[in-house]
Amino acid sequence: MDTVSENTAFGGVQGVYSHASAETGTEMTFSVYVPPHEPGAKLPVLWYLSGLTCTHANVTEKGEYRAACAEHGVIFIAPDTSPRGDDVPDDEAYDFGKGAGFYVDATEEPWVKNFRMRSYIERELPALIAECFPAADMSRQGITGHSMGGHGALTIALRNPDRFKSVSAFAPIVSPLNCPWGEKALSGYLGPDKSAWREYDACALIDDGLSKSGVSLPNLLIDQGTDDNFLKDQLKTGLLALACKKAAIPATIRMQEGYDHSYYFISTFMADHVRWHAERLR
Amino acid sequence: MDTVSENTAFGGVQGVYSHASAETGTEMTFSVYVPPHEPGAKLPVLWYLSGLTCTHANVTEKGEYRAACAEHGVIFIAPDTSPRGDDVPDDEAYDFGKGAGFYVDATEEPWVKNFRMRSYIERELPALIAECFPAADMSRQGITGHSMGGHGALTIALRNPDRFKSVSAFAPIVSPLNCPWGEKALSGYLGPDKSAWREYDACALIDDGLSKSGVSLPNLLIDQGTDDNFLKDQLKTGLLALACKKAAIPATIRMQEGYDHSYYFISTFMADHVRWHAERLR
Repeated sequence: MDTVSENTAFGGVQGVYSHASAETGTEMTFSVYVPPHEPGAKLPVLWYLSGLTCTHANVTEKGEYRAACAEHGVIFIAPDTSPRGDDVPDDEAYDFGKGAGFYVDATEEPWVKNFRMRSYIERELPALIAECFPAADMSRQGITGHSMGGHGALTIALRNPDRFKSVSAFAPIVSPLNCPWGEKALSGYLGPDKSAWREYDACALIDDGLSKSGVSLPNLLIDQGTDDNFLKDQLKTGLLALACKKAAIPATIRMQEGYDHSYYFISTFMADHVRWHAERLR
Repeated sequence: MDTVSENTAFGGVQGVYSHASAETGTEMTFSVYVPPHEPGAKLPVLWYLSGLTCTHANVTEKGEYRAACAEHGVIFIAPDTSPRGDDVPDDEAYDFGKGAGFYVDATEEPWVKNFRMRSYIERELPALIAECFPAADMSRQGITGHSMGGHGALTIALRNPDRFKSVSAFAPIVSPLNCPWGEKALSGYLGPDKSAWREYDACALIDDGLSKSGVSLPNLLIDQGTDDNFLKDQLKTGLLALACKKAAIPATIRMQEGYDHSYYFISTFMADHVRWHAERLR
């Protein structure tokens, strides 16, 4: 792991790091905020998965999480959203290819080689964090994310309830099976057989009974702005509310009046999400 | 005044606006955050002047001021740092010309026509704010800024103690007469006669007794990182401490261990500055 930058912030260290990823076959960059802590202390870890077009930098610069992480003693990790580099295939659209990994392991050409964001987030990066950040208590992990990253947070948490004690999301894509972003990305990365998409769809995972597999579903918190211009056609928060209701899963889904899809929305509720996770990771 | 964007944030509205400036002869862009408030309420105003290379956007995106402004009921205004546009003269360096207005009224060619940031901040923009933002109580104004903008905040407050009840700064240039950035900018904008520079130098303004002109100096708060790579050659915080001591001006100058010149430093102490101003503007 190489250190790109480290800056003192809120008494802790905001770092940006890179490493050669075996999963994606590329150099991957991510950020980690380690709050002030006693020597030898072990701190809970909160993952934040970003949305379309983003890198680690968007939330690192605009997310306003450090004050709350310092207050509650939470390590905050922000990975990239896709592999990068000249050798990585891309699409000219903003919602497919680079910056749009959708947290899947692709099975279709030409994406199959590099677009392995599921395995990267589920296995490779946690192992690196555990090795390089001795303060990280990997037995206490929560996960959150925004939009495409909210989809990533929900599906990764639903598939790995033993690893995550808490999951939240800001304006998540709740059902890629049922929106244009999801249709395009999952057909491109996974092919036309929609049965293969279900493990990448939060609503389908709940409908298929993963929550009844013997391990408890993490606590669930969603914030969604009512003035989000993607709400109606892409995000469809109502589908998640319905799936949770049918499966009798307790979920807190808050419609936030007047908020849009931007980091002005995310930063407003970030401190509350950090506090909410910290309470569940104590 | 035209609205570029408005986003709900922390219960208030983060806006970006533009207008045709008579002072600079250009279109000028600035941001205003109006926190949630009762209808008809009048709120104090905090100005934030940005540093070299910045526009209104840097602090608007990275400054983390909105939570504190919402808590304390403070309007936050972030102007640009220079005129912009194809017709505006420029210099290829980052520290002169566009993005580097140094909050002076230039007297030298070719800058004299457009580079009138002193009059823009002291007169034109406040009049526009008073006209377009009825919640702004212009009898209660504070000012702060970063680096070159800290220089701007200090000198504007020192020259206008009747307007500003409080002044603070993050890592300010305290004496352009005594640093390479200042030498270059003031000689370029004002010519070689250094007597003309003194009204744009916080230490000189204090040495020249402006603080004894019959109106009281605003309260003064400075935060400066000890790991700021510009501290020794450009910022020279010690000169301001010395000037304040000689003039028996009470100033709080805090050296912050381990912090650098970035927005990671600014955002860490922003909430405390907003609270500090709010107490003095109550």
